[in-house]
Amino acid sequence: MTIDRAKFRWNGWGWAAHQDALSAREEVWSWLAAELGMPALLATPARPLDSIALPPSRLAPEAKAKIAAIVGEDRVRGDDRERAFHALGKSYHDLIRLRAGDLSRSPDAVVYPRGGDEVLGVLQAASELGVAVVPFGGGTSVVGGVSAARGPFVAAIALDLSDMDRLIEIDPVSRTARFEAGIYGPALEKALAASGFTLGHYPQSFEFSTLGGWIAHRGAGQGSGGYGRSENWLAAATLATPRGFLSVGGFPSSAAGPQLLDLALGSEGAFGVVTEATVRIRPAPKAIDYRGYLFHDFAGGAAAIREAVQSGIGATMLRLSDTAETRFYRTFGALGKKRGIKDRLAQLYLDAKGFDAAACAMIAGFEGEGEEVEAARHGFEKIAAKHRALKLGQGQGRRWMEGRFHGPYLRDPMLDRGIGVDTLETATSWKNVDALYVAVRDALDKAMRETSPRDGAHGTVQCHISHAYPDGASLYYTYIFPRALEREVEQWRAIKAAASDAIVANGGTISHHHGVGEDHLPWMAKEKGALGVDVLRAAKMALDPKGVMNPGKLIPGA
Amino acid sequence: MTIDRAKFRWNGWGWAAHQDALSAREEVWSWLAAELGMPALLATPARPLDSIALPPSRLAPEAKAKIAAIVGEDRVRGDDRERAFHALGKSYHDLIRLRAGDLSRSPDAVVYPRGGDEVLGVLQAASELGVAVVPFGGGTSVVGGVSAARGPFVAAIALDLSDMDRLIEIDPVSRTARFEAGIYGPALEKALAASGFTLGHYPQSFEFSTLGGWIAHRGAGQGSGGYGRSENWLAAATLATPRGFLSVGGFPSSAAGPQLLDLALGSEGAFGVVTEATVRIRPAPKAIDYRGYLFHDFAGGAAAIREAVQSGIGATMLRLSDTAETRFYRTFGALGKKRGIKDRLAQLYLDAKGFDAAACAMIAGFEGEGEEVEAARHGFEKIAAKHRALKLGQGQGRRWMEGRFHGPYLRDPMLDRGIGVDTLETATSWKNVDALYVAVRDALDKAMRETSPRDGAHGTVQCHISHAYPDGASLYYTYIFPRALEREVEQWRAIKAAASDAIVANGGTISHHHGVGEDHLPWMAKEKGALGVDVLRAAKMALDPKGVMNPGKLIPGA
Repeated sequence: MTIDRAKFRWNGWGWAAHQDALSAREEVWSWLAAELGMPALLATPARPLDSIALPPSRLAPEAKAKIAAIVGEDRVRGDDRERAFHALGKSYHDLIRLRAGDLSRSPDAVVYPRGGDEVLGVLQAASELGVAVVPFGGGTSVVGGVSAARGPFVAAIALDLSDMDRLIEIDPVSRTARFEAGIYGPALEKALAASGFTLGHYPQSFEFSTLGGWIAHRGAGQGSGGYGRSENWLAAATLATPRGFLSVGGFPSSAAGPQLLDLALGSEGAFGVVTEATVRIRPAPKAIDYRGYLFHDFAGGAAAIREAVQSGIGATMLRLSDTAETRFYRTFGALGKKRGIKDRLAQLYLDAKGFDAAACAMIAGFEGEGEEVEAARHGFEKIAAKHRALKLGQGQGRRWMEGRFHGPYLRDPMLDRGIGVDTLETATSWKNVDALYVAVRDALDKAMRETSPRDGAHGTVQCHISHAYPDGASLYYTYIFPRALEREVEQWRAIKAAASDAIVANGGTISHHHGVGEDHLPWMAKEKGALGVDVLRAAKMALDPKGVMNPGKLIPGA
Repeated sequence: MTIDRAKFRWNGWGWAAHQDALSAREEVWSWLAAELGMPALLATPARPLDSIALPPSRLAPEAKAKIAAIVGEDRVRGDDRERAFHALGKSYHDLIRLRAGDLSRSPDAVVYPRGGDEVLGVLQAASELGVAVVPFGGGTSVVGGVSAARGPFVAAIALDLSDMDRLIEIDPVSRTARFEAGIYGPALEKALAASGFTLGHYPQSFEFSTLGGWIAHRGAGQGSGGYGRSENWLAAATLATPRGFLSVGGFPSSAAGPQLLDLALGSEGAFGVVTEATVRIRPAPKAIDYRGYLFHDFAGGAAAIREAVQSGIGATMLRLSDTAETRFYRTFGALGKKRGIKDRLAQLYLDAKGFDAAACAMIAGFEGEGEEVEAARHGFEKIAAKHRALKLGQGQGRRWMEGRFHGPYLRDPMLDRGIGVDTLETATSWKNVDALYVAVRDALDKAMRETSPRDGAHGTVQCHISHAYPDGASLYYTYIFPRALEREVEQWRAIKAAASDAIVANGGTISHHHGVGEDHLPWMAKEKGALGVDVLRAAKMALDPKGVMNPGKLIPGA
């Protein structure tokens, strides 16, 4: 394994040693309290692991022995830390339960296979034994994708792929690379960089998530505009299923009927486990140029993104914050800093240029050969100029780059102070972006007011467009709210349901890149249709007839 | 219907009135005879329809009445011409049977629905009645995709979609258009051109094939490098299935589990009928520039394509003929023409530049905005220059453009003269292109010698690369051979099997853009794996439990 999991937080984000930049800044917390209409924030510390009693393991000694015979004694683990780390993912919903000491969803054991054959053996044994299997890569799901199983199973095991992390081969001519699927992001990029290549898949979870996870939840990295999302870069995959191995893909293109790559892409472990994957790689970029721009409003920024993507100028990333997000980060950044003459001059300049409270910030990124990057940036700036955008320069881009993986760390100190913070995302056609944007924002706002812990308290909703296509774009919401501590799971559920209902009613997909898991399951039938769900169920039955693979996720009623 | 089918050949390609450019040119036929090692060619005219007795229709009056109640009396047709036109597709295998008067595969009736609801009604009725349904768009399948069904059915109907040909709506903001799926290529492009858009999907069958067919066989047009293949431009589809309607897709991108677009893409009517489709469209190109280039050999030309595609220069088409194809068309074009001083000077120039018999011709096409086209062409010519290619100018491109849909017409006069001609195609990784190219070429050559009608007779194999991707390319073979008239179906089958075995054994897909149909069915299990076939079968059972949808195609054992 390339990463020592002991150094991770079991009930929070990332490295345990990560320095919390917020806790000491009282001005942040008093500002946030005011933003949420709260007189003060509460202290809501997490329970330490040693104060929590885990449910006893249900894995019978004979079952454990059967699995141990496949992977080895020392690779079937049952200590509290292992079980707690694998109990849930990293969503707000997960974290509030972990922090409250609710480890009722812990797996009965954690199994660490070292190769496809061992995975296959474990799946076959589990299928025979009636043991549920929850495949586990980095465990950073924010939609309940790795919650240990409930249901009619004698036990549930987490199948942790992190020891399957080899680069198997690189084909520089065809520009593909084959990996074991348990490899973490940094190790994968390091292995490719040694040959001058990159995959370019950088989700916010990059440091703590794995190739198999990116595929299984059909993910998109921040640079999907340039490097594509998982469905674009996945060339082939091997799945271990309870009924045997299945290889999918492997051709640059094919008309041999339906392609079966979706048995891996977005499969969320419900059909089997991705054990190996071949990905399309590219030469490491020679030039990387990220910059800030300021648009007069959200509609103008969105139109610029649309024009850029439809004209194919080749941006790696175009990320437009709405007014609320722009204002939030601007205020946040200025908190506690003395306002100098430079700031006042900048404000005068903005006023003169007609930028008011509706202004929206954008980060645009360009990667590739030097000339290519220049051409793409010029192409984009021509479009931006048409919309009277202001160039904010490379400093903004650099700061975004430095913090590109740090967002999730901000949750932990908020969770310590009675604040809830969650994100959700969707996508729709360009024609429908505005309507969906408003509908979901308003649904979140209303639900946060209705579920707030006291009169006058409310949440705050921010949104950005972060992935764009010729025919539409994604919308990514962050919502922050004062927690109703006595009913915080219900509160979360009500807010989530309101937003999800608004998404489905207004032509959005229930997820653009987070996946389905348990949290989006209630909306799957609406999105896929009854017959679509029947097909998914039939496919699952064909590969996992006992239904032991990650039950309760992805497929309604499976 | 936008096209009058009465003007089509029922047992050959395209318009009945199409002028045969070859028949009068005796020099062509004597040259071809020599090419095939034959002392002379035979006269093998097709049987006229009125001399052929069709099998009696098996569609019982009550069944017919039930279907007529849905679509109307006059839309359930049973005359010989209708049944013959819908009996088979347009492959060599189909044509030799049609020309010989073998109409044993004729459908028992041809049904013309006028909308999705009528399609649904017919499928539900057929499912109850045990009547097989063969969806029929343009009927140009070259892999046995529309052969009327055999098997345990009381009857078989062809479901002809050609009266469902409306443009339903255009969304110019999101750049999508929704059509009824029975619309023919020219009508579709005309409807889009009225709003300044194009789909840009131009298969060789463009004039005679439909949107639904392009989707159902997962097709690729000649300009796939610029406009994408069906899997790239299909945004959403509605399928009518025996169990009801199913809508798939509809978002610019989604992580809501496996996407179900493959229930339309490459579905070949086995799950249901594509009744409507939303496609991604683009502004009609302002500039179109197609040109010829000459490379010293196939490897050099292939490397240039690879470099062009991997560096993303944006060519719409890069089409490289191998040595045999280059020589064939060059000789063919020169036949009967007097060799003048200009030709001799040109030859001297080629000799001086070191182009010998190994030279390979390429047509490169660029479409888009004026600047874009210039930039792409310059980018390509930089790469071509590195490989010491000779620019042949726009004349070659113009000639290719003029004849881009005419290839299939050449078959009919060959079939009149005892000559067989067939095509097949595959795709593989760049690393494997050479090995696959040689293996399939050699397998075809060997099989044509082994099955030739007389000692010393043999075939000729040509190949081109016509679709390229960053990780690989397609190989398209044309093979011409003297027919063994007493066993011509067996001869075809032996040649096809030899090539298909070579494809599968050497890492190619059994089809790059023709599809599966009946002809590739025996190789599907090898390509998809036993579990992959199980999943396809399970999906079919979920949507078509009685198995009436286009039986005997696509899915082994379904």
